[in-house]
Amino acid sequence: MAVPPSTYPRRLLPLFLGLFQAALLLFFALFVTYDEPSAQVEDTSLVANQVYSTFPFFQDIQVMLVVGLGLLLTFLPRYGFSSLTHNFLLLNFSMQWALVLQGLLHHFHHGQIHLDLHKLLISEFAAVTVVISVGAILGRASPCQLLVMATCEIPIYLASEWVIVTCLGVLDVGGTITIHIFSCYFGLGVSKALFRATEQPPHPKETPTSSSDLMSLVGTLILWVFWPSFVAVPCQPGDAQHRAILNTLLAMSASAITTVVASSLLERDGKLSPGHLQNGSLAGGVAIGVVADMAMPPVAALALGSLSAVACVLGFRYLSPLLGRKLTLHDQCGIHNLHGLPGILGAAASVVAVLVASKDTSAAGGQALYQAAGLAVAVGASLLAGLLTGAALRLPCLARPPERLCFDDSLYFKIQEQAESPGPDSSAEEGALALKE
Amino acid sequence: MAVPPSTYPRRLLPLFLGLFQAALLLFFALFVTYDEPSAQVEDTSLVANQVYSTFPFFQDIQVMLVVGLGLLLTFLPRYGFSSLTHNFLLLNFSMQWALVLQGLLHHFHHGQIHLDLHKLLISEFAAVTVVISVGAILGRASPCQLLVMATCEIPIYLASEWVIVTCLGVLDVGGTITIHIFSCYFGLGVSKALFRATEQPPHPKETPTSSSDLMSLVGTLILWVFWPSFVAVPCQPGDAQHRAILNTLLAMSASAITTVVASSLLERDGKLSPGHLQNGSLAGGVAIGVVADMAMPPVAALALGSLSAVACVLGFRYLSPLLGRKLTLHDQCGIHNLHGLPGILGAAASVVAVLVASKDTSAAGGQALYQAAGLAVAVGASLLAGLLTGAALRLPCLARPPERLCFDDSLYFKIQEQAESPGPDSSAEEGALALKE
Amino acid sequence: MAVPPSTYPRRLLPLFLGLFQAALLLFFALFVTYDEPSAQVEDTSLVANQVYSTFPFFQDIQVMLVVGLGLLLTFLPRYGFSSLTHNFLLLNFSMQWALVLQGLLHHFHHGQIHLDLHKLLISEFAAVTVVISVGAILGRASPCQLLVMATCEIPIYLASEWVIVTCLGVLDVGGTITIHIFSCYFGLGVSKALFRATEQPPHPKETPTSSSDLMSLVGTLILWVFWPSFVAVPCQPGDAQHRAILNTLLAMSASAITTVVASSLLERDGKLSPGHLQNGSLAGGVAIGVVADMAMPPVAALALGSLSAVACVLGFRYLSPLLGRKLTLHDQCGIHNLHGLPGILGAAASVVAVLVASKDTSAAGGQALYQAAGLAVAVGASLLAGLLTGAALRLPCLARPPERLCFDDSLYFKIQEQAESPGPDSSAEEGALALKE
Repeated sequence: MAVPPSTYPRRLLPLFLGLFQAALLLFFALFVTYDEPSAQVEDTSLVANQVYSTFPFFQDIQVMLVVGLGLLLTFLPRYGFSSLTHNFLLLNFSMQWALVLQGLLHHFHHGQIHLDLHKLLISEFAAVTVVISVGAILGRASPCQLLVMATCEIPIYLASEWVIVTCLGVLDVGGTITIHIFSCYFGLGVSKALFRATEQPPHPKETPTSSSDLMSLVGTLILWVFWPSFVAVPCQPGDAQHRAILNTLLAMSASAITTVVASSLLERDGKLSPGHLQNGSLAGGVAIGVVADMAMPPVAALALGSLSAVACVLGFRYLSPLLGRKLTLHDQCGIHNLHGLPGILGAAASVVAVLVASKDTSAAGGQALYQAAGLAVAVGASLLAGLLTGAALRLPCLARPPERLCFDDSLYFKIQEQAESPGPDSSAEEGALALKE
Repeated sequence: MAVPPSTYPRRLLPLFLGLFQAALLLFFALFVTYDEPSAQVEDTSLVANQVYSTFPFFQDIQVMLVVGLGLLLTFLPRYGFSSLTHNFLLLNFSMQWALVLQGLLHHFHHGQIHLDLHKLLISEFAAVTVVISVGAILGRASPCQLLVMATCEIPIYLASEWVIVTCLGVLDVGGTITIHIFSCYFGLGVSKALFRATEQPPHPKETPTSSSDLMSLVGTLILWVFWPSFVAVPCQPGDAQHRAILNTLLAMSASAITTVVASSLLERDGKLSPGHLQNGSLAGGVAIGVVADMAMPPVAALALGSLSAVACVLGFRYLSPLLGRKLTLHDQCGIHNLHGLPGILGAAASVVAVLVASKDTSAAGGQALYQAAGLAVAVGASLLAGLLTGAALRLPCLARPPERLCFDDSLYFKIQEQAESPGPDSSAEEGALALKE
Repeated sequence: MAVPPSTYPRRLLPLFLGLFQAALLLFFALFVTYDEPSAQVEDTSLVANQVYSTFPFFQDIQVMLVVGLGLLLTFLPRYGFSSLTHNFLLLNFSMQWALVLQGLLHHFHHGQIHLDLHKLLISEFAAVTVVISVGAILGRASPCQLLVMATCEIPIYLASEWVIVTCLGVLDVGGTITIHIFSCYFGLGVSKALFRATEQPPHPKETPTSSSDLMSLVGTLILWVFWPSFVAVPCQPGDAQHRAILNTLLAMSASAITTVVASSLLERDGKLSPGHLQNGSLAGGVAIGVVADMAMPPVAALALGSLSAVACVLGFRYLSPLLGRKLTLHDQCGIHNLHGLPGILGAAASVVAVLVASKDTSAAGGQALYQAAGLAVAVGASLLAGLLTGAALRLPCLARPPERLCFDDSLYFKIQEQAESPGPDSSAEEGALALKE
């Protein structure tokens, strides 16, 4: 399936993207407009307040996705530029594609789609699913494969989110079920269908160096800091939003400390694993999303944060190798440990929270059932759609890179190959310069 | 003109800066004060609201300029520390200098200048012009030369901005004409006059490494994320600001994708150039500034973003080498491609937007003429002033660094020279330590 | 005291942290709750406004502490991962511990502690003291020692802050006395008692490389940008907060420029020292905190910023080596130069500001005395408590790392040791791969 580098088809990416961008322009020209400017003074002040209350959250989320997540993925030492760029490209592509689909599906009133910051935010959330899923096959898939994956994932996400939130009425303010669980199992499905039964051998270029681990940790810290904005932005302003912020802060703080405990206990020599820290610290944020705005005591947020960090670290230590051996399931970034296991914990917690919080037992029982059903729909739909998408990615024209050139920026970018040790070359160059002078 | 390192004059920088700082203290002591505290409760709440509505934007812009732009300039692998520090120093110097000049020019009422956040923001915008212009001669000019350049550029910018916005009534909310075009041609003028007809030979230390390219891309992403704040902060709160944010987001998203398309199509082997990505992704933000708050359909923002990315990439590929050969015009960071070409596109778009939007044809025609006149003033004034400034920078006392020491932190900083390969040294050190023990 | 690496006790850290986390869960389960949801519409809008006016500042401070300060500490080239992680761990641990103590001390009403964003912010401030103090012994102390240090420092900080602010009525909105001076002398006390009279020899791994210096400077710039949020968040909204922001901006801008002047004048060859830039640029922020919201002319902020930068640079150049020789006082990050000297300058400035500003001479004299008394309490209490804490850290069970393994990530993390020069290894690996294929 892999093609030799000399014949690696390089015109597909600009063709695909160029056509997409042209189609987007056409779509926008025909159907998309802004709201009419508000004539009333009160309306102006209303719009201004909406901007002030939404835009800072929106920026925080952009920093998380573009900078934080991008840096988190740079742990592959020779693939950092690709990780950052592909993440950036996929975010933009998916957001635009989600805008189009949203427009077609929901907002087609009076022949015109009225664009506003809220709709961009919804599209941003849709784009998150793609960049999470990609983690399963990072470094071994071509940009074209990733774009096709995004093309398939966005409509399925929108449909599944509609079923889960609108039809079933599942409570999931932070997207634990609709975003994290969905994208995790979609990514695993893609990985399984793409690589099939062939176990992926360890690749010499996938071992992090200390400097790539450092950059990746900086990404984690950026995500960690801004996570409360991600969870709180869709909340009702006031108490619910306040509580969502506090719960997320507590859960993430507990995650950070518990990750150190768990990672240290699991390794024989007590040394911490960078991968555990980079992921476990964020596990609480994944899990808390579904219950963040519910009326529950603060201790529940702490406990959920701790538990999900433990689950994440145990997943890295035991479950991922097991899945790799038994199911030949390849998960490059361990998205199952960061998004899958903590997501399931969060969904389970939401069932408990709904049952405990409500005084009306029968209504609570119904809602609890819906929460569980939402989880089932997310896992089922994403796995199935992921497997189908992964099968489509095996099309030879999509140009999966040859194994030897995986995890290497030089396949996609005009970049200095020997990044970290320019010593001898540059001395030679300096010699040449000295001679010239 | 270049001086040997042993006699490199190192007392000029502290002398210049020290005198400036002392003069600033004197000026502030004599003339600058804060507003009287507001006695009324309503006024207090008004001030509080002004802070809440301006300060987050102000912080975003500070992050862009200090961190984002600084990192973008670290693509020179052995000049990263200098790039960051000189950018930081010039921002502070220029902002203070602009505060002084603004105070003298505009705000001299009742013998006192009342300082507020808004005046700092205006000064910050003035400082942006300097750090953009510097890109043309980055790495080959001494800090003293850069400071003299800033000293000349700020008053000319303030004058040109006054002519363009106040006298001509040009609409330019995001500073496309007044900031980007002005600073681009000012920088090119300086470069031309400073280096004259001598073609700058390729320097062995100016080739980016993969790690310096990565840091630079992180800078791009930070700029990309916060750009909407830069464009939207001067807008009228409410619809205009909302529209400016949306238009900027759309333009930048289109730029990001179109850059990949254009870069990939232009290179024979289809590999993307890091420089194209680092700059092209931002081109939409430059172009959209002048029309961001106008009433135009969203598709126009997308189209402008795409077009300016194409112009930027084509500029890097064809125009810059051409200008280098034909005009011996040296443009180290390619500011003409990022700020010049997209700026001109944006100015042209503003002419069209003004003509199309208005129902009153004659008034629209007049405004369109003014937009074009503004562009002409910005280009003409900046080129002329830049050429004069560049000639002044040739003064021998300003200590242009010798070619051999260009692009090298070690000329200005007490820094380990062999940054990236401490391997052998550190082993030796460890050996020494082992012996000691 | 140092233990050989083979017997380095690795179970203590997870044991300590695990027990703490369990105790925290118990404490939260028993005593901590959220405010009742507000039933009234006006209350909801009030809570929403509180969130909008506090949360952006809170996020800015989180970015400063988690990302900015963490990066600032990565100047040790082989200890970057440890610096970032220990900083992150200590922030979370200290914040949680401060939440518990605050709850016990102040907020024990009706058997329940009502958690809100404001209380988290107070705890965050308490945590700052720990991460500042740690700078004195960075790289030579084990994580267990750092946690014990945090355990001791938080209650003493809370007590000292209560005495200084509540009992003495000291004005210190930005924490110059209560946070910076306190944590500086606490850290120096710990260092003195921990290392006693043994001079710490220069370690081969503590010399920054150009890439570690660059990362550290990025941390400085992030701190520099967001510092106004740190100073302004506790201010009264309106004029006081506006003034605090402006004063902090002015002081930090003056610091940045004066640092360049001072550093350049002090070195014989006129080259700037990275350490001076990384610290001196922030000195103004430390000093301005105590007077930021007072009614004083803007020139005072500029002057204070300049003076504190000079003090900081002089401290690095002369005082730190002197203290090292005469008192065998070890200060790894130079916290005395960044937090101690500028803090004392700020405290002195607050005495002057109080005397000058007030029209009521006797009241002003009293307040000035209290300001001086606050400084004395902060220095005295912190030094004494620091010495006692440092003595406790000498307990053999706390596992101070052996000198040979100081400043080295590989003692604590499963990390590639030869970070910066993977050249030969990776070639070997590639060879192996080529053979396999």
